Amino acid sequence: MRSPWVKSRNRDEERELKREAVLRTAARLFSEQGFHATSLDEVAEQLQVTKPTLYYYIKSKDEILFECVRIGLEMVTDSLARATASGGSAVDQLVECMRAYGRVVTMDYGRCVIRVGEDPLPPDSRRKLRALKARIDRVFRDLVRQGVAEGSLAPCDPKLTAFTLAGALSWIGRWYQPQGALAPEEVIEPCIRTLLAGLLRRPEEPVPRRAAAPARRDASRSRRRSVT
Amino acid sequence: MRSPWVKSRNRDEERELKREAVLRTAARLFSEQGFHATSLDEVAEQLQVTKPTLYYYIKSKDEILFECVRIGLEMVTDSLARATASGGSAVDQLVECMRAYGRVVTMDYGRCVIRVGEDPLPPDSRRKLRALKARIDRVFRDLVRQGVAEGSLAPCDPKLTAFTLAGALSWIGRWYQPQGALAPEEVIEPCIRTLLAGLLRRPEEPVPRRAAAPARRDASRSRRRSVT
Repeated sequence: MRSPWVKSRNRDEERELKREAVLRTAARLFSEQGFHATSLDEVAEQLQVTKPTLYYYIKSKDEILFECVRIGLEMVTDSLARATASGGSAVDQLVECMRAYGRVVTMDYGRCVIRVGEDPLPPDSRRKLRALKARIDRVFRDLVRQGVAEGSLAPCDPKLTAFTLAGALSWIGRWYQPQGALAPEEVIEPCIRTLLAGLLRRPEEPVPRRAAAPARRDASRSRRRSVT
Repeated sequence: MRSPWVKSRNRDEERELKREAVLRTAARLFSEQGFHATSLDEVAEQLQVTKPTLYYYIKSKDEILFECVRIGLEMVTDSLARATASGGSAVDQLVECMRAYGRVVTMDYGRCVIRVGEDPLPPDSRRKLRALKARIDRVFRDLVRQGVAEGSLAPCDPKLTAFTLAGALSWIGRWYQPQGALAPEEVIEPCIRTLLAGLLRRPEEPVPRRAAAPARRDASRSRRRSVT
């Protein structure tokens, strides 16, 4: 005999899966077209259901955006927690956190955080989401502060440095195309390298042989190059 | 006798000044509250005129945003042109361009470019503004490429590096408060320093004396510190 509890759990799970499909489809459309330019009709159409069906899973377009941004920010928070769980030096933890953050902003919910964010939402929702953002910022600031203290990072203002890191990595979410030629790590790793080592050539680095680099092939060249 | 041409020129100038006031007020409100959350009534209220008066200077809310973003991007293009006009090494020009870009994104039109941008506009307007953005991106990419060729910059992918710079500097436009405690150069210069030299402490740099930095005073400390 099949247990009614199992059945009911399955129904809950199925509902959750469907709700997730609604949110993720919306996150993708919001990121590509903008929040205001996307109608719930389009979300329904993509899922091959009617608009009334959507309302079984969500209350409003605002609720969808709130959930998309919340999930994106929770994904960041969770992956930062994993990145710092094993301890180790502050600089190693910071690099893992940068990787984790970069990965999320290349994904549907993360792109929605960066491209749309909480701005279209009412004040109360904005406040809740900004509190989540502040928590993420705090992790980066604390690690920068600890990195300076442990002597691995150059002396700096942790707040401004955390903003510089967040800006460079968040920007990936604005221009990165998941269907494009570059894998996430092919854009994240060079970004982290630049942030860690800086633009300037260090004295010990060899001067490149050729005076002029070939133009317009940067992306395809970086594809062939090993990335770590 | 007063020349009618002078008079007519003055009337044109006055009209231009008033139009500029409409655009700049809108740029500020769009940046603070979002494009869709800002009504033309609010713009009119701020200027102490009626909404019909606005329509003497602009056709629509879309036209206002288009103009705000266009002006912001032209400000960047113009200041990049000035920064590269004197020639010199690629790295010096690049630093001047980063400064110029950073300055614009702390101003009304520049903040509007970063916080609102072209996304709410119809496809044709978006296309025009994106062409302006691509021109700015090209300046940074070319300078990075030249900097690598002249040996001042570490070997890198110019496209990805230009995105990293643009991201870190653009982010300033998202969080910077012109009415806040920090002057523009107090946030731009540390950002540029981090991008040039990297986060990592270079061997020749002294290890900081104190093990733990005082918490929560970063911004105010950076205010007292000299910034160059």
